[in-house]
Amino acid sequence: MNDTAPVCVAVDAMGGDKAPETILAGLEKALQDDPALSVLLFGDEQVVAPFSQHHPRVTPRVTTEVIEMGEDPLAAVRHKRDSSIVAGVRAVRRKEAQAFFSAGSTGACFAAATVIMGRLKGIHRPAIASVIPTPTKPFVLCDMGANPDCKPEDLLMFAHMGGVYARFALGREHPTIALLNNGSEKGKGSELTKRAYELMEAEVPGFVGNAEGGDLLDSRYDVFVADGFTGNVALKALEGSTKTVFRTLRDIIMSSPKNKVAGALLKSSLRQLMLDVNSDAYGAAPLLGVDGICMIGHGSSNERAIENAMHQVCLSVRGDLVGAVAAIAGERLKQ
Amino acid sequence: MNDTAPVCVAVDAMGGDKAPETILAGLEKALQDDPALSVLLFGDEQVVAPFSQHHPRVTPRVTTEVIEMGEDPLAAVRHKRDSSIVAGVRAVRRKEAQAFFSAGSTGACFAAATVIMGRLKGIHRPAIASVIPTPTKPFVLCDMGANPDCKPEDLLMFAHMGGVYARFALGREHPTIALLNNGSEKGKGSELTKRAYELMEAEVPGFVGNAEGGDLLDSRYDVFVADGFTGNVALKALEGSTKTVFRTLRDIIMSSPKNKVAGALLKSSLRQLMLDVNSDAYGAAPLLGVDGICMIGHGSSNERAIENAMHQVCLSVRGDLVGAVAAIAGERLKQ
Repeated sequence: MNDTAPVCVAVDAMGGDKAPETILAGLEKALQDDPALSVLLFGDEQVVAPFSQHHPRVTPRVTTEVIEMGEDPLAAVRHKRDSSIVAGVRAVRRKEAQAFFSAGSTGACFAAATVIMGRLKGIHRPAIASVIPTPTKPFVLCDMGANPDCKPEDLLMFAHMGGVYARFALGREHPTIALLNNGSEKGKGSELTKRAYELMEAEVPGFVGNAEGGDLLDSRYDVFVADGFTGNVALKALEGSTKTVFRTLRDIIMSSPKNKVAGALLKSSLRQLMLDVNSDAYGAAPLLGVDGICMIGHGSSNERAIENAMHQVCLSVRGDLVGAVAAIAGERLKQ
Repeated sequence: MNDTAPVCVAVDAMGGDKAPETILAGLEKALQDDPALSVLLFGDEQVVAPFSQHHPRVTPRVTTEVIEMGEDPLAAVRHKRDSSIVAGVRAVRRKEAQAFFSAGSTGACFAAATVIMGRLKGIHRPAIASVIPTPTKPFVLCDMGANPDCKPEDLLMFAHMGGVYARFALGREHPTIALLNNGSEKGKGSELTKRAYELMEAEVPGFVGNAEGGDLLDSRYDVFVADGFTGNVALKALEGSTKTVFRTLRDIIMSSPKNKVAGALLKSSLRQLMLDVNSDAYGAAPLLGVDGICMIGHGSSNERAIENAMHQVCLSVRGDLVGAVAAIAGERLKQ
């Protein structure tokens, strides 16, 4: 991989709870970090024009529409042709940029990428692979929300694609891959996971069998495979419970002078732990299985998350993530 | 409800990771707590005979078989007729006891209760309702694992039954009921949850719409409804992440003399928080929708969990939990 090869990324300036401010602030940092990065910036004229005037490696692309979080993704992509998401994805399709990034509507990005970039040969359903931090080492969850209804064959491909991304994002050369299930023994599960188990056992290198929700943060496996519904619920349950425990800890620390002293002593350690389990470190999740790089940030992305997201995007372009997924899908077709 | 009415419970002495020791120790406490409690104790002769000799309100029921955790539930229930689970459930069916409790195989208890007690009229699938603690107030999750594959109508009944149990176990007279989903907006979800939403909206009092995994520990809703697969994964993800954060905190506290001082100052507060989020406080989850009371404890139940479980069992008998579920199911049939 050439770490200094030039990369041009199409960026949605309008997507995210704190857009455009945090997007622009994060981009500014990323441009400083990586001198080979250039950006096509999609959004309202009063947002993209002034920013590009002050940043020579940023080209403004004025769009007039924005896809909101609550909109029906497919309808929005069809009708808002001049939205920052649709125009940004189209720029990748036209090879004006090598990747698209947005912290806006996941559904709309998914729909735009699937419709405009198209699926890779052999891929029935593209999926989102997300790097989830733990207090020890991060893991990959695939699918984390794109496909609420899946077939066993879809889960099989999620396993293959999740394995590819574990190599890319985490450098795990021979990733261990587990099926998220409601029991650890073979034979446990829903109709979907029982059949997916058989398929994965037969052809996924590194498949280790079933894992339960309680294993997610255990750092035992590199990749967890789930349908998008289960993946979404599990991921949000993890994030939510970690947040709740931290909030409660803070309340405890603030509740008495004695506890405040303890809080002051623990401050740096607790701050480090909060950083360790914070998903900002991996600000972008790729949509795998489409013919192009489309990466999606958390709606609540802050400046640091956007900066890190751009690193992830550049890593995926420079390492040819799409080529790696296409190779696995292609090999399966040959069999 | 008559808090002092006599209650006779059939108890499985053999089920659970630390059985029979913790079962007997917890039972001993429960018998001291509640002078109107009597027990039929099912298990190996050398376990149940000595214990009953020292406890006048305990009658030994010797069984010769034990259903292990890994066994196929339905096959085990069919073939191990003289197991503590099958014999215990049969005692309830014969009205020798008013409830059955086991910390053994959830699947086997579910199979035994469904086959031997039978389902209530109007109930297609019995479900397990579990009280989940949070740092603030507990909530009910239904189903937490009995039914990995569900139809929308099943989720509708889980909502009704979960509401009944929130009144029983938590005293919430008008419980708020949310559908666990992969998005909070109406229209989000899998095919299953989208249709279940419509059914619940039409007929479940207290239905508040969709909730996400991150809302589980927020204490905003009294009941979360899910298919057993999703419920199981979400619950274990919650338990697992809380455990991981606590373990990491302990490591932080032990990592330096300064942090040890802080740990000593926070000791009582942290211990209270760990108690607050510990499921031992509600040691038993009922199987709702069967024609009898069958309550299931966590496999890892300790003495305190078993003691609290017996309280939950007595509460359910004295308040006529089965009658309350039957009433709701019966009313729906009349419509």
